[in-house]
Amino acid sequence: MTEQFFAVIPAGGSGTRLWPVSRANRPKFLLPLPGPRTMIQATVDRLAGVVRPENILVITGASHVDEIQRQLPSLDAEQIIAEPLPRGSGPAIGLGAAIALARDPDAIVGSFAADHVVTENDRFEQAVRSAIEIARRGYLVTIGIRPSYPETGYGYIHSGAEIGTQHGIDAREVDRFKEKPDIETAERYVASGEYLWNASMFVWKAGVLMEEMRRYLPDLADALERIARDWDTPRREATLSAIWPTVPDITIDHGILEHSTRVAVVPASFGWTDLGDWNGLGAMSAGCDDDPDENLAINAELIVHDSRGSFIFGQGRLVALLGLENVVVIDTDDALLICDRSRTQEVKQIVEQLRARGSTTLL
Amino acid sequence: MTEQFFAVIPAGGSGTRLWPVSRANRPKFLLPLPGPRTMIQATVDRLAGVVRPENILVITGASHVDEIQRQLPSLDAEQIIAEPLPRGSGPAIGLGAAIALARDPDAIVGSFAADHVVTENDRFEQAVRSAIEIARRGYLVTIGIRPSYPETGYGYIHSGAEIGTQHGIDAREVDRFKEKPDIETAERYVASGEYLWNASMFVWKAGVLMEEMRRYLPDLADALERIARDWDTPRREATLSAIWPTVPDITIDHGILEHSTRVAVVPASFGWTDLGDWNGLGAMSAGCDDDPDENLAINAELIVHDSRGSFIFGQGRLVALLGLENVVVIDTDDALLICDRSRTQEVKQIVEQLRARGSTTLL
Repeated sequence: MTEQFFAVIPAGGSGTRLWPVSRANRPKFLLPLPGPRTMIQATVDRLAGVVRPENILVITGASHVDEIQRQLPSLDAEQIIAEPLPRGSGPAIGLGAAIALARDPDAIVGSFAADHVVTENDRFEQAVRSAIEIARRGYLVTIGIRPSYPETGYGYIHSGAEIGTQHGIDAREVDRFKEKPDIETAERYVASGEYLWNASMFVWKAGVLMEEMRRYLPDLADALERIARDWDTPRREATLSAIWPTVPDITIDHGILEHSTRVAVVPASFGWTDLGDWNGLGAMSAGCDDDPDENLAINAELIVHDSRGSFIFGQGRLVALLGLENVVVIDTDDALLICDRSRTQEVKQIVEQLRARGSTTLL
Repeated sequence: MTEQFFAVIPAGGSGTRLWPVSRANRPKFLLPLPGPRTMIQATVDRLAGVVRPENILVITGASHVDEIQRQLPSLDAEQIIAEPLPRGSGPAIGLGAAIALARDPDAIVGSFAADHVVTENDRFEQAVRSAIEIARRGYLVTIGIRPSYPETGYGYIHSGAEIGTQHGIDAREVDRFKEKPDIETAERYVASGEYLWNASMFVWKAGVLMEEMRRYLPDLADALERIARDWDTPRREATLSAIWPTVPDITIDHGILEHSTRVAVVPASFGWTDLGDWNGLGAMSAGCDDDPDENLAINAELIVHDSRGSFIFGQGRLVALLGLENVVVIDTDDALLICDRSRTQEVKQIVEQLRARGSTTLL
């Protein structure tokens, strides 16, 4: 536990690809995926070993503040910040750094999305501790995940020269960030051993991030410093409301990390998925060493006859599969999705059809 | 409407192949398949044009009498007969004939199972009227269904010489009853045009059936005549309870029809299935002329993306299919079945697994 360490938890996004569990007013971070805790509860839980509870900041949309307070009673209302408008990860994560810096000039800040799934918590903690030590040396540190299969839905990080070992992990410079690859490229990346999944999990000294922001996004740096200056004063809300609409809508990756020469990566090998679609949860839950023929059921009693490779996310009911392969079954109170496992990214097509029909309750 | 016409409705069987909708204490004839009326209600409804309500007799197990009375309030308690023990269709249908004969020496009796699905009711009525006229001439008449596809789950009737036209239908002698064929044989049957599905739907003079029963099953004839003699007396229950356990457990087909030389068939072309498995309902509901790529949903809102040939029996929830072909989805309150459409006969394997697990509520 590092007293200087702060954790920012950006909690945004609607997650239509996880329909029918996620809906417009039920973004995935509020849902028990994979359960029993909700994703944002699990995010806070897994940080318990590395950050003091009062050093956590959640940044979310105004409509989700009440539900987050309900789900996270250990946080003060002060620790849940409502963005007046959604503005991408750059301003949100930057605001966390600016606030931490105003409180502690040596603050180290980590950013951990509220809607990712992590398993093997001890390895997660080890990676964060390692990243904190590398960050102390002035690096902007990303925690990269060793890929367990050639996923085309993630960005990749090409790692460069070793820069030292901390907590048993060899950190490296980042050679380059790579966009989501096609399948052949992804296979090459995985085979090379030089590429890591970009998990959008960052650790840095708040002062170093603000320096780099001043270099690459000076308007944002100005805006955030003005907001941070008024943060612990009665003018907080007024200043935030006045300035936030003027900040650029940009990700921290595009805005700073892809340009900075001070970026390092800590390779980690805990189980991770951003849960971009249902297959992500199924693939991670099954684990890469498991029998691919196996069927996996979360929150469902499963009974099968001659069926393989299926993933069921249920609501406690019995699910029986007969003569089927590689299907995804998502069972909710008012909607049932049955999907070929290789096509879970197309769930948004179903959501679009519902929208075209004018459905309100199911979206 | 023929005053002399009586209708017997045998209501038996457990229907595990229609799990999870049918259960041990919810046999299919009590269920709304395909709905909205239950199967036994639909059976009585479709007879309204050909039989007087007071001439209907339902024969069932003692445990189902109350529910049948609830579902069929137009019937007197007298019209619902509880078999002390299940004894196959021979004794059940024979009892109906013996009772009708005791009331009217010229009674004509039809037998219509409580758990078959019929569409095109006008053609059904036409076939029954035709069968009544042929029965008057002393034939044991079966109503045979022109096959719409080579079903291997049904018995077939090979028709012989024409014996006359009634109500626009050419009745024929029955050359032979055939057991359930393999697929090649079924295809040959259908191509020949000479074979009909044996729908276990019969019409005969009660006196003719009892004559043939006396010839081929004399012990059963004796037993049923003793029961019928006491039927409208205070001794009914005592006589039924004493004699019924002694009658043979035999079907009317094996016991009489396969031996008798007085059997005729009235070929009919209404939609029919005995609903032996889920594909039966799907196939009949879709109709033989429909696009086989079409998806069919009963009691479910269906939304599809790139999915074909599936059948959904729901409970009102939205069902979304993505990238799937030929699946059957049966959605109930406490269990969900998803099955390859060509393998619906194997649903009993699922039921057996549940039994092995010691499940009680789901069976």
